[in-house]
Formats: sequence, structure tokens, C-alpha cells
Amino acid sequence: MNIVLLAKQADQHEYCIRDPRQIQHLRQHLDVKIGDCLKVGIQDQERFDARIIRIEIHEIWIERLSKQVIPAKIPVTLIVALPRPKVLRRLIMDSVTLGVEKIVLMHSYRVDKSYWQSPFLEQLPHYVQLGLEQAGDVMAPEIILEKRFKPFVEDRLALWTQQHPTFVGHPYTDQSMPYAYNQPCQVVIGPEGGFIPYEIDLLKENGCQIYHLGNRILRTETAIPVILSRLFI
Amino acid sequence: MNIVLLAKQADQHEYCIRDPRQIQHLRQHLDVKIGDCLKVGIQDQERFDARIIRIEIHEIWIERLSKQVIPAKIPVTLIVALPRPKVLRRLIMDSVTLGVEKIVLMHSYRVDKSYWQSPFLEQLPHYVQLGLEQAGDVMAPEIILEKRFKPFVEDRLALWTQQHPTFVGHPYTDQSMPYAYNQPCQVVIGPEGGFIPYEIDLLKENGCQIYHLGNRILRTETAIPVILSRLFI
Repeated sequence: MNIVLLAKQADQHEYCIRDPRQIQHLRQHLDVKIGDCLKVGIQDQERFDARIIRIEIHEIWIERLSKQVIPAKIPVTLIVALPRPKVLRRLIMDSVTLGVEKIVLMHSYRVDKSYWQSPFLEQLPHYVQLGLEQAGDVMAPEIILEKRFKPFVEDRLALWTQQHPTFVGHPYTDQSMPYAYNQPCQVVIGPEGGFIPYEIDLLKENGCQIYHLGNRILRTETAIPVILSRLFI
Repeated sequence: MNIVLLAKQADQHEYCIRDPRQIQHLRQHLDVKIGDCLKVGIQDQERFDARIIRIEIHEIWIERLSKQVIPAKIPVTLIVALPRPKVLRRLIMDSVTLGVEKIVLMHSYRVDKSYWQSPFLEQLPHYVQLGLEQAGDVMAPEIILEKRFKPFVEDRLALWTQQHPTFVGHPYTDQSMPYAYNQPCQVVIGPEGGFIPYEIDLLKENGCQIYHLGNRILRTETAIPVILSRLFI
């Protein structure tokens, strides 16, 4: 936790931290005292330095000091086949920490249909918060759920691809993922076990470019930082 | 699991898979049948295609077909402050999957001493196996435990650094991590909460170069794929 991220609220001089997770972190890991300075963010608004002015059992009160710069996003829409619930948390946290602007969780042939009923999907805003707190960011990315592969690719991704290129990570191709691209783009990552040939063909027909990441097959959650770090340098 | 990795053993024409985890994966995820082809590796030896010739309840027998190429390693020694036990598994798996040649788990001021007693440390060979199976690799990296920071940095890392450069990932510096370096090197990553100033000074005095990874603070386990993907393109 590199900032304490509070829910969206009206502008004021003093703020109160009440989230038990944040209180526990401040007490146990940082052992905070009155007068200590903290980095604080208000979600989707701003980030500032703050000073602790009162500590109670379930509340820590802070006063606002100087405004701080919010780290820039990377101009990427990350499109990922919905992973197993256990992987979802890490995937969202990492993508948010790395500064992804928009995330699409999409269906694909090898995505188990039961994943769409997972209670973890209701936890997405919490995972986003954790990712923002790690990065010192406050702006939540947009997250879109696309439960049908074909209409998503044909009706929406195809249009986006006319604006900015779409790079698909896939082991079975001759061309290697570009690096230092540093321009707006979409990145597509398949499910565990990969896309089926029909899906790769449909992506290609709709303008997507298929690239490999070397001769080692990576897990989805490892492929994301690898691709983003390679494209945005 | 992109290959079935078997323990080191004498060269033969037929092999038997007995590990319950591997058997379960082959049955449940791949639904294998007699005559199916598999990718198989013998740890620290070789990799080949194989055909299933017999399926019993607790055993799957295969016959060896043609030899396959083992994916190349990246020429890096990854030096990481020992993370929380929960993070250790993922960190080792990812590093092995990405092809790291040698891993040093080292002590640092912000590493809780109790981590060195964790039973997870005895599981390292298992995590290595999982990482190799993901990558389709068979060569286990060397793993070294360094329980004292200063003697390690002064007596060993300093010597390595005379041969190949050592890049330390650290948020508080002006210089940005190089990219497309593609040469042998050491990479150092600190603990949760970062290195303390004394440690950064000691690393510098011993020839290490300190670089940031942008203005977002990453978790150890995210920083590893980000740095490796940036240095080795």
C-alpha cells in the first residue's frame, strides 16, 4: 500500500480513514503516530500528502497538505480471456498497478462458463483499489465484461482496431511482439490452454496482429507484465 | 503444464509417469488416450515427443519419439530479497518459466527473519518443476540462499559485478532501467517496503547500478517479469 485510497467524496480539509484493512496496515506495518505524513488519494479525483491529526481505535483522522501528481496511465486497452477466479485477483491488481487504461474480460472457448458466475467478479472494485494503492494511483480503469466472443470481436474490437492496432499474444506464430511501441493500442491475451484456431482466425479476419513472446509459454498473469513492459518502455 | 517433467533417470525407450498431480492433469485437462502424443522432459537432461502406450489407474506409460529442442535460458542471475512464503511460490515459478539461469534468495533489513524458517523453502524444487513444466524447459536453475546481506554483497556480488553489470530496481533514483540489454548481467530486487538507504549505499559502493522502473511502485513478483522483459528483448 503506497497510498491510502479513500472513496470519492466532497473536497474538504480533513478526512477520516475508517477501512479496517487500511487502519490495520497503518498500525501494524507503518506504526503511525500523530504528526506523521501519509500519501493519500481520493478515488477518481486526486492525490495529496496528508498529516495525521488524530488516532482513535477505529478511525485515523488526517489533514490535507500539498497536492501531488498522479502517475500517468499507459494508453492500452487490455483484453483478457476471463481467468480462473484465483488468478483474476492478481491479474486485475497487476494490470491496474501497471497503469492499464481499460480492461476487457472476455469469453473464449477454453474459458469455463462457471467462471462468469464466480463471486470474485463482484470483488473487482476491491482488486482495483488494491492495484491503485500499490501504484500510488487514484484513477480506476474502466472494466468491461464481454460474455460472447464473436460479437465482441466482430462488432467492437474490429472498430477499435481501425483506430489503433490490436496485438494478440499467441505462441504459435513466426512474428515476435514489437517493443518500445509506446502508442495507443489494444493487447489481447488468451485463456489457459490458449485460443483455439477458429478464434485466432476470427481475430485475424478482424484486423488483429498475432505475435509470439519467445519460445517459452507463459501463464496469462505472467504474460501481462511481460507484454506491457515490452510495448511501453 | 506444457511438458510432463520426469525426474532424472537413465536413458531408456519407455518411461512411466507416476506423479499423481501429472496423472490427474493428463486425465482431467487433456483427457489422454492410448496413442496420444505428449511433450515429455527428463529433468536436467533432455526433452522429447512421446506416445502413450499404456494407461493404468496410477500409471501412464509412454514410448519415446523424436528429441526436441530445449528453450534457451536468459543469461541472468536474479537476486531477490526473500519474499513472504505466499509470494515465494509464484516468484520462483515465474522466474523459472521466464528462463532465469541462477536465482539468489537473499536477506535484507525488511525481510522478516521468520521467512527463513518457512517450510515453503523446502518446496523450492517443486516450484522449479512447475515453472519448467509451464515453459517447456527441463534445465533447473541453480538456487542459492544468502542469509546475510553484507557478506553476500561485499564478498560475492562485488566479484560478479566485476564480470557483468548488476542492475538494482529501486524507485528512488533518476535513472531509468536500460532496455534490450541482452547481455549477461545480475538483476537485484528488494523486499516489500524496499531496501533501506544503508543497503542501497552498500550496493552502490560495490559497483551495482541503481535504476527505477517508472513512477509506479511494483510488487516484487510483478517487478521480475517487468525487468526481465525489458532487459531481454
